[in-house]
Amino acid sequence: MNNYILINENAIYYECNFSCDNVIFLSLGSESFFITDSRYALEAKQYCKNCEVIESSDLVKSTKELIKNNKIKKIIFDSNDFSYEKYLSMTSNLKTKFINKQNFSKLKRMIKTNDEIILLKKASILGKEGFKNLAAYIQKSGFKKDEKFLNFKAKEKMSNMGEYELSFNPIIAINKNSAKPHALASSKKLKKNDLLLVDSGIKYKRYCSDRTCTSFVDFDSFSFERKQKFKKNKHQKIYDIVLKAQETAIKKARVGMKASEIDKLAREVIEKAGYGKYFIHSTGHGVGLDIHEFPNINSKSDVIIEENMVFTIEPGIYLPDEFGVRIEDNILMLNNKAKIL
Amino acid sequence: MNNYILINENAIYYECNFSCDNVIFLSLGSESFFITDSRYALEAKQYCKNCEVIESSDLVKSTKELIKNNKIKKIIFDSNDFSYEKYLSMTSNLKTKFINKQNFSKLKRMIKTNDEIILLKKASILGKEGFKNLAAYIQKSGFKKDEKFLNFKAKEKMSNMGEYELSFNPIIAINKNSAKPHALASSKKLKKNDLLLVDSGIKYKRYCSDRTCTSFVDFDSFSFERKQKFKKNKHQKIYDIVLKAQETAIKKARVGMKASEIDKLAREVIEKAGYGKYFIHSTGHGVGLDIHEFPNINSKSDVIIEENMVFTIEPGIYLPDEFGVRIEDNILMLNNKAKIL
Repeated sequence: MNNYILINENAIYYECNFSCDNVIFLSLGSESFFITDSRYALEAKQYCKNCEVIESSDLVKSTKELIKNNKIKKIIFDSNDFSYEKYLSMTSNLKTKFINKQNFSKLKRMIKTNDEIILLKKASILGKEGFKNLAAYIQKSGFKKDEKFLNFKAKEKMSNMGEYELSFNPIIAINKNSAKPHALASSKKLKKNDLLLVDSGIKYKRYCSDRTCTSFVDFDSFSFERKQKFKKNKHQKIYDIVLKAQETAIKKARVGMKASEIDKLAREVIEKAGYGKYFIHSTGHGVGLDIHEFPNINSKSDVIIEENMVFTIEPGIYLPDEFGVRIEDNILMLNNKAKIL
Repeated sequence: MNNYILINENAIYYECNFSCDNVIFLSLGSESFFITDSRYALEAKQYCKNCEVIESSDLVKSTKELIKNNKIKKIIFDSNDFSYEKYLSMTSNLKTKFINKQNFSKLKRMIKTNDEIILLKKASILGKEGFKNLAAYIQKSGFKKDEKFLNFKAKEKMSNMGEYELSFNPIIAINKNSAKPHALASSKKLKKNDLLLVDSGIKYKRYCSDRTCTSFVDFDSFSFERKQKFKKNKHQKIYDIVLKAQETAIKKARVGMKASEIDKLAREVIEKAGYGKYFIHSTGHGVGLDIHEFPNINSKSDVIIEENMVFTIEPGIYLPDEFGVRIEDNILMLNNKAKIL
């Protein structure tokens, strides 16, 4: 069956190369419809591929008429994307059976096309440039700046002064705060010999990058490179374990493995070092139009890793009230192996 | 009946002074529960008022147990906030009747408390400071900067370098682009004698400000003041009509009117000037924790205006392919009259 209805912007963009904040996308067999209001109809007609643009002042009503007129008996939707209100209005007075397929679009998008990989690669390159510019700022002017201000500077440098959208609000965490995987920026100020965790990414033509670096703070030479030399032995010890976990997973990941096996590759290194209980999240997640896509790289995921999948590998160790280390890169499965994008 | 379940962050914050991105709030008669996971439980216990914090690894399951154990027969929820998936998981295997009250929390929040008004006033003041700083930047360095870069600068100035969150992504529109009420920033560059529309706001302790200014561009003296002198006669003519519409509505708005009457006060001025069909949106919207709250100030709203309501008055005229003018302020109903916050 090839009847489905989409309301999520990224899901719609994937189908037809355009989206806007008021649209219903309807695929009925070989025909597809982009139903939107007068504000967006002109642009939609210009940019939409493989679908007919329908201008309407009542999107739900027009969608239901199309479903009725085409005598559609069953149609797929995703219960995560529909509010209950939208579901009620869409299904009322309609005999069509709505079939709930959770993550319908995200599952379609799990293996990237070559065109998508080019965009994801570009996003990663631009993201790394942003990190470099942020590093240069921190080295020159980061002393005594607080996390909130550094968060603002991260947005400036990562977006290249507003040229690119961010994949998400950057995480900037100093020392103790880095022990929280999703720390909010505080008034804590940056000092020499601190440990600084930065998690950030940008979007290039809507495709996301996602990277985390944990660095030693030194205002003579600061960088987000993988090679880090910390003053405190414990910082260095934990950093080296996490780095080994990430590099092991990247080196040994193969097409044909289960996602859970990649999770295990990273987790085992951390467990063997005695810090298993401080690696409190999964090893990674798919990246694409959404910052969180499939496959999930966790201990329960049976998904078989395939060529052209793109996902993060991001092990971490979080020592409560001390500090945390996470190292994250975007990975592409290419020629059977994992390659950092 | 005083049983309800909330999942929207602002709705929850309003009840108990705290929220996080994984929480269910349950009110059962005189008892309330803040159900969250281990990441947030400690902070929740510190900041939550008037409710018991429950730590859980399965929020839906814990919520359903509370509903069952308290033998709750009926409970209110808002179908706009619940995804269909959340509705299904919440209602399965539960005999309790879920009663759909759309906008349940927003309706509660329509009349502001004195404490809320203080925060909204502060947000407006800080928002105006942001506008002033942006004006100073434009006068000094705005020449030949494009909309995208000015959008970035608006974020910088309005947020005071990241100190405040923004209420929404600013709208920065030059000449033709201002004819679209929700224009996206483009590569169009700012020049002398242009017309520039800026719509922006910030949050102070989670409460929003919202303001739109339309200005004449002059690099010797640029401001977002209401008094504007345009070079082009047509710019000036349209600006003066919109200003008169806004000032008339503010001057004549009274407690006890219907919201539609305030809409009419502004709309009549524009209609009498012959531009009625170019005022393509409603006159305003409530502002609070959410940037769009109640009352709606439109031609169909029967809501009676009351003391301590806060809403925007923002008439506009949009001449397609020419330009647009909108003037917007936050309004508080105080001592029977409308006062600019």
